Amino acid sequence: MLATETTPFAAARPINKVNPHIVILGGGFGGLNFAKSLRGTNARVTLIDRQNHHLFQPLLYQVATATLSSVEIAKPLRSILSNYDNIICELAEAQAIDLDARTVSLPDRVIEYDYLIISLGGVTSYFGHPEWAEYAPGLKSLNDALRIRREILFAFEKAEVSNDPEEIKRLMTVVIVGGGPTGVELAGATKELGRYVMRHDFRRIDPTKVRVILVEAADRCLLHLPRDLSRSAQRQLESIGVEIRVNTMVKDIKHGRVVVSSKEKPDETETINAAAIVWSAGVAANPITRTMDVEIDRAGRIKVNPDLSIPGHPEAFAIGDIALILKQDGLPVPGVSPAAIQMGQYVAKVIKTELSDVNLRPDQRDPFVYWDKGTMATIGHSHAVAMIGPFKFSGLPAWVMWLGVHILYLVGFTNKVMVVFRWGWAFLTRRQSARVITANDGRGVTPITTLPSTTVVSPPRQR
Amino acid sequence: MLATETTPFAAARPINKVNPHIVILGGGFGGLNFAKSLRGTNARVTLIDRQNHHLFQPLLYQVATATLSSVEIAKPLRSILSNYDNIICELAEAQAIDLDARTVSLPDRVIEYDYLIISLGGVTSYFGHPEWAEYAPGLKSLNDALRIRREILFAFEKAEVSNDPEEIKRLMTVVIVGGGPTGVELAGATKELGRYVMRHDFRRIDPTKVRVILVEAADRCLLHLPRDLSRSAQRQLESIGVEIRVNTMVKDIKHGRVVVSSKEKPDETETINAAAIVWSAGVAANPITRTMDVEIDRAGRIKVNPDLSIPGHPEAFAIGDIALILKQDGLPVPGVSPAAIQMGQYVAKVIKTELSDVNLRPDQRDPFVYWDKGTMATIGHSHAVAMIGPFKFSGLPAWVMWLGVHILYLVGFTNKVMVVFRWGWAFLTRRQSARVITANDGRGVTPITTLPSTTVVSPPRQR
Repeated sequence: MLATETTPFAAARPINKVNPHIVILGGGFGGLNFAKSLRGTNARVTLIDRQNHHLFQPLLYQVATATLSSVEIAKPLRSILSNYDNIICELAEAQAIDLDARTVSLPDRVIEYDYLIISLGGVTSYFGHPEWAEYAPGLKSLNDALRIRREILFAFEKAEVSNDPEEIKRLMTVVIVGGGPTGVELAGATKELGRYVMRHDFRRIDPTKVRVILVEAADRCLLHLPRDLSRSAQRQLESIGVEIRVNTMVKDIKHGRVVVSSKEKPDETETINAAAIVWSAGVAANPITRTMDVEIDRAGRIKVNPDLSIPGHPEAFAIGDIALILKQDGLPVPGVSPAAIQMGQYVAKVIKTELSDVNLRPDQRDPFVYWDKGTMATIGHSHAVAMIGPFKFSGLPAWVMWLGVHILYLVGFTNKVMVVFRWGWAFLTRRQSARVITANDGRGVTPITTLPSTTVVSPPRQR
Repeated sequence: MLATETTPFAAARPINKVNPHIVILGGGFGGLNFAKSLRGTNARVTLIDRQNHHLFQPLLYQVATATLSSVEIAKPLRSILSNYDNIICELAEAQAIDLDARTVSLPDRVIEYDYLIISLGGVTSYFGHPEWAEYAPGLKSLNDALRIRREILFAFEKAEVSNDPEEIKRLMTVVIVGGGPTGVELAGATKELGRYVMRHDFRRIDPTKVRVILVEAADRCLLHLPRDLSRSAQRQLESIGVEIRVNTMVKDIKHGRVVVSSKEKPDETETINAAAIVWSAGVAANPITRTMDVEIDRAGRIKVNPDLSIPGHPEAFAIGDIALILKQDGLPVPGVSPAAIQMGQYVAKVIKTELSDVNLRPDQRDPFVYWDKGTMATIGHSHAVAMIGPFKFSGLPAWVMWLGVHILYLVGFTNKVMVVFRWGWAFLTRRQSARVITANDGRGVTPITTLPSTTVVSPPRQR
């Protein structure tokens, strides 16, 4: 029972409780797990995503650093859901959501829903500097990862044939802005790419000398972890040669260079020339939330009721990174995949319960409770940090745990075996096999839609 | 001994026979095998390719039909050659070749050579209709394959949400022009993609009804095989539902439609609407041959001496698809990978012999002899044709042979195991895991260079 702001279900159309039409926007961890939990019900489910695949985002940095190939962390939604006869997948991008009329506008038509699940995730946020996006991609999609891979691999190629020592230095420098889990994991993996994988592949340059600089505005990396684990992570990063600059602010980003200053001396700036710059400092909710008549926080996340429904709309839910809900300790539920999965499963249970007993009222729903399974970040070969409940782990034990958890959660059997095999191979030989450069799309950081040209006017990004 | 048109080595600069600089243009089967054969010599070798990877081209159609992912048939040249200390790899595209001055122009500089190996392969040829390229890609590069995959997968997505029966019919039609090995293999694999792999993935359309039309101007497919094997291949194709139109000429290609006419009634045309059109009807040599002062045939292939050297230039060789040389029966050595491999190994032997005995003259070289190992084409699951010497095989036995040969020849250990695993999985489950749509480059069929923007004026395609 919870004291939520409940209005009766929107009166525009009665909600079909026999075989309701449930629309899911976004096939990420939240949306996909919600969909799967509806197996065997009478619900007619439409899952809409602008990509044809579910992405195992926690391993995206391994695509960026050429350990894994795209298909190993992505699987077609249709294929995952092919045995779920009540689910229809559609490749499209929602243009607008009308919570009162209970409709979603797609490029070519408007669809009605009885229940709506918004699980569109987040986008990279540049804190008021969208112009930096052109020079410093985030790491949110396969295309982002492939772009970063291309930039790093090309830089080595150019360095190999250059005669200009300054230019060679620039070409062998990678700057990563943001010391969260993505930044830390990417920094470690980039350093290892040069240190081990490509070490024998060049004749003129020495890839082990690749310079990886991790820039963090706060006084330590991995702010969500206790201080001693942060310290351990930083020590492990430094032991493999990553340069860490804490208390360092980014002032400007241009093509091939980052201007930074330290917090103590904000007026003294330093310019770092780099071949690749990655922005992992900020995430915001999918911008579609700003076009809806709902209450959002600064990052654009929808403030949801304790049952994850949108205030005033008990039939519309927001889950995953696009939702803002506080834990019992007053802090927000973190934007991590286990939270999204739990939210998806919770909402499915809520809806299934109400379908089985049409007399239940929305104010009788139990609240969502987040179960924190722990948190971890890997730094490289045998290096990681992890925290499970009150227990802290570092180095090899943490790394082995990280490995186990990620193998367990990888979607799709073939991918799992492939990834394990590729990791085993990479571990034994310190060689990576995904170092193939494919098409340079030539379109910079513009979010590349995978939709055919029917899409209209600059749509917001989904997932 | 052979009666070749021999001139003494170009006199511009004496040829360094102690540690000669050998330049290889193109890291395909010919160039790569040549390079590998020079291991342990004093030669300083520079291998130049516009891609960073060697491509196992015979399996490219499996990338186009989503059985394999790009990295499984491509491996970085640097990685393949990392233990060959005398070989330098360079990512660049030759702009011009000066056989008299013994130089190759790259975008940023000119390099000199003592020996030159031109192994740039072929490009798709539209027989005087370059405008068709925009609507009907060939299948020569990873980018081509990914484009075809995208077109086919998107078409199914669009068909699933369309309400227009005519449009659905068009979206579920794939036309393949050219009944050579590539066309036959692609037709079979495309039909199987719908028949098995995607069969349960859609709710409104029936993917098994995908219409695959193979258009061939001659009176049969697989012209390089005896009539009875052609017939067997056509029967096998038809048994899985591919429509074959022999004696059929392509009159015009526009976006989403092909105009054809039969040979008997050339004035009666028929328009076939299709979601994807693939051109596998013609190959020409890399156009750089047309800028050189050498004798070429209509397809642009360089007419080489029996020792594969370019007439008048005993230190410059052309190998693989870019070379024209006749077998003892008067027919050209075919443009297949075994021929390119044999040529690469042969030329390496010629050069090594001359390096070990500086008194040998070019006119003392033994001629190249092509060893025909047989030919095969796979049509789909358990369907294939093969001919080894005088022996002909069809159906399952041919398919098992095909499988063995391709596994044997795949470059790189991980790839080999991965491919075997993926095939095994696909065979058992009839599911494919590479069905991920990534970035639509949005640039149509323009050859997508993987070079940074330093490249100048519309360069010819390499490999």
